[in-house]
Amino acid sequence: MKDHDTIAALMEDIGARAKRAAGALAFAPPEAKANALEAAADALGQRLPEILSSNAKDLEYGRDKGLSDAMMDRLTLDAARVAAMAKALRDIAALPDPVGAVMAEWDRPSGLHIQRVRTPLGVVGVIYESRPNVTADAGALCLKAGNAVILRGGSESFHSSQAIHACLVDGLRAAGLPEDAIQLVPTRDRVAVSHLLGMTEYVDVIVPRGGKGLVGLVQREARVPVFAHLEGIVHIYVDKAADPQKVLDVVMNAKTRRTGICGAAECLLIHEDVVETIGQGVIRALIDAGVEVRGDARLAEIPGVVAAGEEDWGREYLDMIMAAKVVPDVDGAIEHIRRHSSSHTECILTEDADTAARFFARVDSAILMHNASTQFADGAEFGMGAEIGIATGKMHARGPVGVEQLTSFKYLVTGDGTTRA
Amino acid sequence: MKDHDTIAALMEDIGARAKRAAGALAFAPPEAKANALEAAADALGQRLPEILSSNAKDLEYGRDKGLSDAMMDRLTLDAARVAAMAKALRDIAALPDPVGAVMAEWDRPSGLHIQRVRTPLGVVGVIYESRPNVTADAGALCLKAGNAVILRGGSESFHSSQAIHACLVDGLRAAGLPEDAIQLVPTRDRVAVSHLLGMTEYVDVIVPRGGKGLVGLVQREARVPVFAHLEGIVHIYVDKAADPQKVLDVVMNAKTRRTGICGAAECLLIHEDVVETIGQGVIRALIDAGVEVRGDARLAEIPGVVAAGEEDWGREYLDMIMAAKVVPDVDGAIEHIRRHSSSHTECILTEDADTAARFFARVDSAILMHNASTQFADGAEFGMGAEIGIATGKMHARGPVGVEQLTSFKYLVTGDGTTRA
Repeated sequence: MKDHDTIAALMEDIGARAKRAAGALAFAPPEAKANALEAAADALGQRLPEILSSNAKDLEYGRDKGLSDAMMDRLTLDAARVAAMAKALRDIAALPDPVGAVMAEWDRPSGLHIQRVRTPLGVVGVIYESRPNVTADAGALCLKAGNAVILRGGSESFHSSQAIHACLVDGLRAAGLPEDAIQLVPTRDRVAVSHLLGMTEYVDVIVPRGGKGLVGLVQREARVPVFAHLEGIVHIYVDKAADPQKVLDVVMNAKTRRTGICGAAECLLIHEDVVETIGQGVIRALIDAGVEVRGDARLAEIPGVVAAGEEDWGREYLDMIMAAKVVPDVDGAIEHIRRHSSSHTECILTEDADTAARFFARVDSAILMHNASTQFADGAEFGMGAEIGIATGKMHARGPVGVEQLTSFKYLVTGDGTTRA
Repeated sequence: MKDHDTIAALMEDIGARAKRAAGALAFAPPEAKANALEAAADALGQRLPEILSSNAKDLEYGRDKGLSDAMMDRLTLDAARVAAMAKALRDIAALPDPVGAVMAEWDRPSGLHIQRVRTPLGVVGVIYESRPNVTADAGALCLKAGNAVILRGGSESFHSSQAIHACLVDGLRAAGLPEDAIQLVPTRDRVAVSHLLGMTEYVDVIVPRGGKGLVGLVQREARVPVFAHLEGIVHIYVDKAADPQKVLDVVMNAKTRRTGICGAAECLLIHEDVVETIGQGVIRALIDAGVEVRGDARLAEIPGVVAAGEEDWGREYLDMIMAAKVVPDVDGAIEHIRRHSSSHTECILTEDADTAARFFARVDSAILMHNASTQFADGAEFGMGAEIGIATGKMHARGPVGVEQLTSFKYLVTGDGTTRA
């Protein structure tokens, strides 16, 4: 399928189907949605051989393409990974149904009773890379929130995603829901992505899941709203009133637990009064753990610290590397963060409640941590159930994007023949 | 000022100043914002002669331009209207400060305490037409929510808006807040609007206030999010189980109280079982009140009813005209609304709770009314204090846009050296 007109027609058809399905899904009974997800989980078990043989095709394609070991690992499915996917579907099925939930209600002197209730957003487009499990997770989260979804997986996981998608459709069918509620774009052609990003008449929001290249492309080209974060340039500020043990625990966890996730810390800001004490200690521990510490002029005097260049401020390493800098006080830290952060997650380590409150009030990132590891920046850790991603924009969804963030709302107003004076 | 480069530089400067001011406003004390609005209200009184002489210049310009009587009336200021503007500022000053308000909080098994708190959106651009009072209202609402605002008034109210803006700046100065928190674009050149709509690096959201021409232009051209409604194509469905007196009261109020507002009803849908009874009665009353009723084939048989054309469905008259149509049942009404409404406000008149619930669940407009006049579609009537407009999009703000809708949020997470396993 290389013909642009053919793909335009294909995407137009997918969009129109999704919009129709969304109309019906918006008032589907909660049980039907939960049943569909349970049935899809069952289907993942029943169709395991088919899923694994589809995955084998993708692995062969990946090897021919010379994918890195990390990429090949992400792409690989086995019985345990498929079982984990099924469990995720059942977990999402068990979440409270958000549609129709009353967010607020009040009475007015006019006699009106007003309710604000959750409604689905409509049609969600999800564009992702090689992880085949995103097909199941994203499809399930969107369905739970009453949205139709158009999934566009990575070309590497093309066959695996199709096999998983077939299980989701089994689930929809079993529950009597429209099969078009969860559609997978059936072509690897990149032109399909451009169409998806521009279908303002059908698509309400796009969620890109993947690296900076993909997210940047989507943010630049989308003509519909986007829930995304481009980078997680996460800062930790060690205040003069920090507890040394908490600094060690939190910084080591935030940097080294997993370096490749968006909540991993990338830059350490240290109050100048504690450089020789807490600062030395934590930098030593980082270096001993195998982290390359890139310090400013003052910190570069510490043995083992590499001199940072200007390009190290505001940089996402996603690796065993951490920038480090001395700041005069909390305001210096806030100033550095304002210039260099990606508004994802920042942390303050201090025992001084006033300083923590100042940091909380003045830093405007989606998530602010006090004496806690930045690796908690995750919807499941927040208690939201699964997440489809983390957003750093200020509109609608911010921070972890779970089922509730995939909804809108409307006002229901009840009177008794009530007229306005 | 006709030179495009000059205006580009001017708008760039305004944008950068607004963004700097927003950084400081985000943590301004609630008292400072309230004091600024009180002082601005005082200044409106003190500067009354100056405001009226500025307004006289605009009225002269309007007469030369041949503005309609309605437009001239909207443009005209007198002592009472300026006093009303001052009162609106004091009312907004007295609203609860939204910034920092805790929207939700909970504890996690990990030991984390999580709060979701309101934050300002950042920089709001407001583009409006001839009403000079929007300068005061919009400036005050944005300030209350901790946002910097860039106001772009209509060319007809150019001098009046400048005089009112000077009072707002007096207030900011008196309260020690940055004067750039409320800026007014100091040129009538339309090129300034194009720049404002494209300043993605400075402007977080645009709110257009005005007719369909202005709102359509902004929705088409803006490269930043927009809170707006293009039209209010408001439907009222009279169910077979409707109460005849409530139908009369609500329909007459919804159509005739004020015809020019977005919550005014435009189309009446009548259940076929009650056409000869309730339907005849309400259509008679509308015609007697001077409303032109444009009916479908069946209703056109009623004396005095004009035959509707295809173009009458989904039409916003903003006048003493109403479309009317017979539908087989509530689902027929829902189907008509789905095809023709602008997702602003719709109403059902029925004494049957199940039918009302079906309408509430299946119609996806920002505001749904049951046995109440659609003219209640207004932020003040909802108890939100003032509103900057009504939004029909599904993202972020929907329905009346008041102070709270002009905010975003962030997560504040507190631990005690807490690390992720």
